[in-house]
Amino acid sequence: MRRLLVGVDLGGTNVRTALLNIDGEVLEKRKEASRASEGHIRVLQRLAENIQRIRESAAGKEGEIIGVGVGAPGVIDMQKGVVVKSPNFPDWNELPLKEELEKAVRVPVFLENDANAAALGEQWRGAGRGVRSMILMTLGTGVGGGILLDGAIWRGADGMAGEVGHITLFPEGRPCGCGNRGCLEMYASARGVVQNYYEGKGVRLAGSGELTAVMVFQAAREGNAAAIGAMQRMGRDLGIGIASMVNIFNPEMIVIGGGVGEGWDLFIDATRREVSSRAFEAPARRVRIVRSSLGDDAGMVGAAAVALQQSKEGHA
Amino acid sequence: MRRLLVGVDLGGTNVRTALLNIDGEVLEKRKEASRASEGHIRVLQRLAENIQRIRESAAGKEGEIIGVGVGAPGVIDMQKGVVVKSPNFPDWNELPLKEELEKAVRVPVFLENDANAAALGEQWRGAGRGVRSMILMTLGTGVGGGILLDGAIWRGADGMAGEVGHITLFPEGRPCGCGNRGCLEMYASARGVVQNYYEGKGVRLAGSGELTAVMVFQAAREGNAAAIGAMQRMGRDLGIGIASMVNIFNPEMIVIGGGVGEGWDLFIDATRREVSSRAFEAPARRVRIVRSSLGDDAGMVGAAAVALQQSKEGHA
Repeated sequence: MRRLLVGVDLGGTNVRTALLNIDGEVLEKRKEASRASEGHIRVLQRLAENIQRIRESAAGKEGEIIGVGVGAPGVIDMQKGVVVKSPNFPDWNELPLKEELEKAVRVPVFLENDANAAALGEQWRGAGRGVRSMILMTLGTGVGGGILLDGAIWRGADGMAGEVGHITLFPEGRPCGCGNRGCLEMYASARGVVQNYYEGKGVRLAGSGELTAVMVFQAAREGNAAAIGAMQRMGRDLGIGIASMVNIFNPEMIVIGGGVGEGWDLFIDATRREVSSRAFEAPARRVRIVRSSLGDDAGMVGAAAVALQQSKEGHA
Repeated sequence: MRRLLVGVDLGGTNVRTALLNIDGEVLEKRKEASRASEGHIRVLQRLAENIQRIRESAAGKEGEIIGVGVGAPGVIDMQKGVVVKSPNFPDWNELPLKEELEKAVRVPVFLENDANAAALGEQWRGAGRGVRSMILMTLGTGVGGGILLDGAIWRGADGMAGEVGHITLFPEGRPCGCGNRGCLEMYASARGVVQNYYEGKGVRLAGSGELTAVMVFQAAREGNAAAIGAMQRMGRDLGIGIASMVNIFNPEMIVIGGGVGEGWDLFIDATRREVSSRAFEAPARRVRIVRSSLGDDAGMVGAAAVALQQSKEGHA
């Protein structure tokens, strides 16, 4: 029997589930809507069903699943396997996800914060292979972060570290959902791109419905000046935040993932210029600012890495 | 023979040297001007003479010095014991301080960055006893920092981490000596306090010569509105930077030292208010923002801690 792993990326929008071998290669994956609003009992049921299906498929490959890793958004108590609080799943308070899932699937389950899982995924199989100090930033609807120091995730005193999306860039800037003003998240997220576009006097773009960051990328590539300006500004603002992190951490690498990463060519030069002009010379020269190489798979791969690591350490 | 340690804090203005026992108690200390402008040969000579004198005194106490720790400003290569570059000692480039001093004093010498040494001092004998994650900020002429994670200093890929004075607070703010604009150092240092005072329309204060932060503290305590405003602003701006660090690190403690710490009562309420209103609730509640308890001794005590630690590990 081959030893296999399951990695789950439990997002507010989608649940991604993958079967991997112990070298971190994805053998099979599936994706479906999370439907968080249906409540935790239904979400847990579907998670268990997904894992069950992947396990049957593993059996067909003469494989045995040695562990399931789950990356979940919010505050995670890894030791206890509990989701303390999750912004995307409003009814998840102190939810014993590990215990509940283990009851259903009868395989050891391990929990990790989703951004931390993505950072571990990039380190194991992605852009950060061989790197010991790295900050992963996921630029999506919001901006998440995972901080890897000396090869391990820095979690902080309460497991709440790594909120690099909530560095203050502009003390009197845009109000943020977290209660602060001017957070990086308000400028380098998909919403930030759209707001930049409107503030730059961009007019309504073709296409029906609400304006999205992807529409801004496309308009910028077609030469729309307001869209180009929106991406330049986003890149510059991201660079201000990265420069601070470079001075604080002197890291080897910054990895940028998430949907806004799709606009890479439209912002990265502005970002790099800003980092060079603001950060100390030696750490600015040292840091490699790169794009996530696993993309949407990073969270699943990293969750599987957690399962592998924890199984080895006998934390089942 | 009692086993004793020497701790040296080599600052741009003063050299402080202490004799300590292996519990970190200061038995004796001395201070003299560094006179950096006289060049590295003279500074090294005086360092060696100081250590020699302390050693004679130790012998009088029936003690034997097992190691000398030196905290020095700038970029330090701890492994090699080399001062790579130091802003306060312009002719120190790749200076093999460990080797040179060991030749002169014939005792194992260990080097550390001065802000890191101060953080280790506070952890060993000061405000941070028993604390595993802590950020030390020294608010002096500039703003230095030492980051302690999981009980150890985080140095970064090139030993340049911890520059918390060079977080960008205001992207279009005051020009900083480092080449950036709006660094925390320009608002929370002694110079920042003085500049706040003038920008707040403070008039020339009594006393001859240049305005100092200490003069602003005194005026504020006497009810001078511009001076009070300068300290409030300094406190608020410091709080903006601390809030970002709280969201990034979720640390147990922030320790504030340096000369501007003398104005503690004039700024700390504004700082704490700003952190509460900007940082995430749980880590903001968790973090203790406290004043350095070792004051000017922190660097010497921490340097001695390095010497003790390294002697144990056999890195002589």
